[in-house]
Amino acid sequence: MVNVKRLPRRGGNYQMSTDVKGIAASDGFGIAPAYLLVDPDLTYETTQVEDTAAEYARVEAAFQASIDELSKIKENAKGRLGDEELEVFDAHIAILSDPEMMGQIKTDIEENHTGAEAAVDKVMTGFADMLAAMVDNQYMQERAADVKDVAKRALAHLLGKQLPDIAGIDHPVVIVAKEITPSDTSQMDAQYVKGIVTDLGGRTSHAAIMSRTLRIPAVVGSESITTTAQNGQMMVVDGLNGDVIVDADDATVKEYEQKAADFEKQRAQWAKLVDAPSVSKDGKEFEIAANIGTPDDVADAVKQGADGVGLFRSEFLYMGSDHLPSEDEQFEAYKKAVVGMNGKPVVVRTLDIGGDKPLDYLPLPEELNPFLGYRAIRICLERPDIFKPQLRALIRASEFGPLGIMFPMIGTVAELRAAKAIYNECLTELQASHPGIGKNVQLGMMIEVPLAAINADNLAKEVDFFSIGTNDLIQYNFAADRGNDKVSYLYQPLNPAFLSLIKHVIDSAHRHGAKAAMCGEMAGDKYALPLLMGMGLDEYSMSATSILRTRSTMKDLDTAECAKLVDKAINECATDEEVKALVEKELG
Amino acid sequence: MVNVKRLPRRGGNYQMSTDVKGIAASDGFGIAPAYLLVDPDLTYETTQVEDTAAEYARVEAAFQASIDELSKIKENAKGRLGDEELEVFDAHIAILSDPEMMGQIKTDIEENHTGAEAAVDKVMTGFADMLAAMVDNQYMQERAADVKDVAKRALAHLLGKQLPDIAGIDHPVVIVAKEITPSDTSQMDAQYVKGIVTDLGGRTSHAAIMSRTLRIPAVVGSESITTTAQNGQMMVVDGLNGDVIVDADDATVKEYEQKAADFEKQRAQWAKLVDAPSVSKDGKEFEIAANIGTPDDVADAVKQGADGVGLFRSEFLYMGSDHLPSEDEQFEAYKKAVVGMNGKPVVVRTLDIGGDKPLDYLPLPEELNPFLGYRAIRICLERPDIFKPQLRALIRASEFGPLGIMFPMIGTVAELRAAKAIYNECLTELQASHPGIGKNVQLGMMIEVPLAAINADNLAKEVDFFSIGTNDLIQYNFAADRGNDKVSYLYQPLNPAFLSLIKHVIDSAHRHGAKAAMCGEMAGDKYALPLLMGMGLDEYSMSATSILRTRSTMKDLDTAECAKLVDKAINECATDEEVKALVEKELG
Repeated sequence: MVNVKRLPRRGGNYQMSTDVKGIAASDGFGIAPAYLLVDPDLTYETTQVEDTAAEYARVEAAFQASIDELSKIKENAKGRLGDEELEVFDAHIAILSDPEMMGQIKTDIEENHTGAEAAVDKVMTGFADMLAAMVDNQYMQERAADVKDVAKRALAHLLGKQLPDIAGIDHPVVIVAKEITPSDTSQMDAQYVKGIVTDLGGRTSHAAIMSRTLRIPAVVGSESITTTAQNGQMMVVDGLNGDVIVDADDATVKEYEQKAADFEKQRAQWAKLVDAPSVSKDGKEFEIAANIGTPDDVADAVKQGADGVGLFRSEFLYMGSDHLPSEDEQFEAYKKAVVGMNGKPVVVRTLDIGGDKPLDYLPLPEELNPFLGYRAIRICLERPDIFKPQLRALIRASEFGPLGIMFPMIGTVAELRAAKAIYNECLTELQASHPGIGKNVQLGMMIEVPLAAINADNLAKEVDFFSIGTNDLIQYNFAADRGNDKVSYLYQPLNPAFLSLIKHVIDSAHRHGAKAAMCGEMAGDKYALPLLMGMGLDEYSMSATSILRTRSTMKDLDTAECAKLVDKAINECATDEEVKALVEKELG
Repeated sequence: MVNVKRLPRRGGNYQMSTDVKGIAASDGFGIAPAYLLVDPDLTYETTQVEDTAAEYARVEAAFQASIDELSKIKENAKGRLGDEELEVFDAHIAILSDPEMMGQIKTDIEENHTGAEAAVDKVMTGFADMLAAMVDNQYMQERAADVKDVAKRALAHLLGKQLPDIAGIDHPVVIVAKEITPSDTSQMDAQYVKGIVTDLGGRTSHAAIMSRTLRIPAVVGSESITTTAQNGQMMVVDGLNGDVIVDADDATVKEYEQKAADFEKQRAQWAKLVDAPSVSKDGKEFEIAANIGTPDDVADAVKQGADGVGLFRSEFLYMGSDHLPSEDEQFEAYKKAVVGMNGKPVVVRTLDIGGDKPLDYLPLPEELNPFLGYRAIRICLERPDIFKPQLRALIRASEFGPLGIMFPMIGTVAELRAAKAIYNECLTELQASHPGIGKNVQLGMMIEVPLAAINADNLAKEVDFFSIGTNDLIQYNFAADRGNDKVSYLYQPLNPAFLSLIKHVIDSAHRHGAKAAMCGEMAGDKYALPLLMGMGLDEYSMSATSILRTRSTMKDLDTAECAKLVDKAINECATDEEVKALVEKELG
């Protein structure tokens, strides 16, 4: 989305600069020259070789050089990256050591006298294509990207070319790229990388998540930045509003330096709220909690002043393992999170695999529409051998602090009752040896299947809490895959009809004494916040980095005013744009 | 689902027979010996051949024999089958003439001295796998099934084996199969095929649809019939209740012959209702309409006494063509349907491609979840070059009789308004040369996206009618792909929360003077009928063969009683099973 415009300058002069609009992915302002992450020309001559042994030796040398390079990058990245991210490099190194692939390259050179570049390119592209053809298997498709990544590196070594060297950046830059790979981010030094702008990706893409973790201002999904910006041009990245200014003039730079300074001041103000309660202007108390993936994330949640953990995505325990984690392994992980939160509640979502999250050791059928398929509670209800160890581990961990268990993808009363029956089985078994165990457990369910939202009034009678998973709830209610760019216009958390559904869920919970929480992207959205407060949502669970900003905004909002806003949004607006305009107008 | 039980016999004797339960797919009773559609052993020895020319000649001979056989089958099927079904045989013959595939087989024999069987098997399986790997493209996956079908036939010829010969059946049988392919049904003579039972499939599978069209009683999705029944065993197929009795004794046969005779009498009674109004016991008038795919289907709709066409699936005009049908081509098709209905209304759904319905000449992106993707109105709003010719053709056709235009997959008010804006553009253009054109047009929308159902009250203000598409509405509301066996338990039209949503849609329509119609599978469901009448649904659109049965049931139902039933179902039941039991209890 490019818009070339004349910017007014002091003294009435005009200078051409270019505005690019994208998706705001990570808060803050980045101002620095552009550094383009664009590959060198890796085309090669197709030749017939005579000395096939020497040619294959070239391949071995290039692969070894690639392995050495990857090992060095991994070494450099230690400390900056977690274990999971570091494992990507091992995966890349493993690809370069794959005997079947090496064998095919060797055969191609020996039998067809193919040149090293062509042989490496052909065989590795073939591997990647084969993986990429598994179109409903995101895991395999990501492996395809890995193979291509590695092939590029090997080819560059064969051709004596240099790939862009992120690890070598030693001055302030704004990184400009089509998209950002894990191997890119791992090499970034946040000290020098002042901003990131990409052509592709949304708020949940790798680039977006990593830039938030590394606290680098970022704009993603700009569609055109790599064709608009040139190396060295002065860039301004506005990660709050999704604006990028390419070839910015001095006045613009100055203007944004001021904004950045103001923002830093604001951030310092927020930091003072770390021990403050989450409270509205009129004194109503709420809870702002953190979404986490592993027990290690608890430390950051505490540092950011979380009132609890609203979503512990337990599937990461399963996806990071090569076997089904045992009851004891799980118990240790949950216990660590509960102990780490020191009396503040931890809500664990039970296994949510299937769909876009496969497990190597639990083969599931290939599906035409995995998001509408066999996943989460649908698997667990059929597989108590998987479900019960998790529930038992959770009940045991609750002895160390308040713990919520929530079931994902519940659609019907029958499913909820079936899940609770298995839970009660586990409880009875454990109480035989541990009388009284389980008293700290709260039982809840995700509201993410449309029918569950509609039926909230009946479901609320049977749980202690709801947690509204807005990402899925929106995608199903609008029948629009949230990963599909062609229908991304239907991601409309502010749609008035959707807001009325959210209100129905919250009202239903309260009618039956249940707590209403939210753990989707919407919970941290600045436009949604006043509306959700107006509806009386009790708990807002979000990425830890958004907690203090939200707490700060919250204390300036009056819940009675917010309730009026909800009324207007639902009854007087027809579209999400109208609601957004309303919130902007009423709250500035 | 097998249940071996002792059936009481006269005189106190007992005999073992086996009951198998499945999904009732086509009305009526079938009583005849089993004919198993199970393939012969097609395994072969892997040999190295010396005379490769002779070996390839064997392949050519087997392919030619297969082509001859397919041509004969096609010839026999003419008259029984429509053009579209007959084209399947041409597609199969075309596969057997594919030069690239033949070339690969030849190369494999010549270069590797592979035997004919192994070469045919390997190359064709490779082709099929490549097509099947396109997992989000149902069209290509079906082509994969075609290739496998053809490979089997060629292999049988190479091995001198006989495939089951459906076309040769010359005595009454009940066909027992894992599943039924189009090539199977095309060969069936309804005179001899008294019933069909399959392991796989649901009410919308090919076997189910074809058996209804051919009026053969059928039970699908039995899971186990091919391992339970043996050739020649006496079978009873109860297509009303989904029961199958294997190895039935004389008493059982007699009992079901009586039921079949009663059913035939009932069917004769129904036939008398062809010109009767669709009216309840208490005199409230409704409309029972037909779902059709092509203008040719209008004749059958009229013959079955349809009060109108409630759903003309216009995409068949596009899928049956090798180019975008022009405005004039479309106009002729719509006009033919309107004229054929002779003053009764015809509702045409605008283009609903994408998802599982691709078009060769309109390439769409591959999608991870096509049911949640770029389809139907989402495409049309971006492509007025496609949308406008259809709307213009429809407006022109409305000069020949009452015509409804309905937009599929509308989720938001903004989408509906955008679609209406394009419609109004077309209307203005046409009115310039045809003053007054368009006065016979009613504008409506499908209710199939959950958010549209929730927002029915606002959407109803902007349309003349709703048509509830229950198949999609259920799949999205329960987040369960209706084609996925693993989650088929979530196809719950009778779920109380879902019923409350349907009621909300109907009430919303009536509140704003709009008509409420339904065109999904649920409209013809016997358990749903009293509930829908109780809610005041105006129009019930279904396959033509179900119209008279529904009209007959309708005239025995009192709408006030039905309304009480709705109240109980929504307010006193927690699960779909409870609703089903309630309807059975109250109405027998």
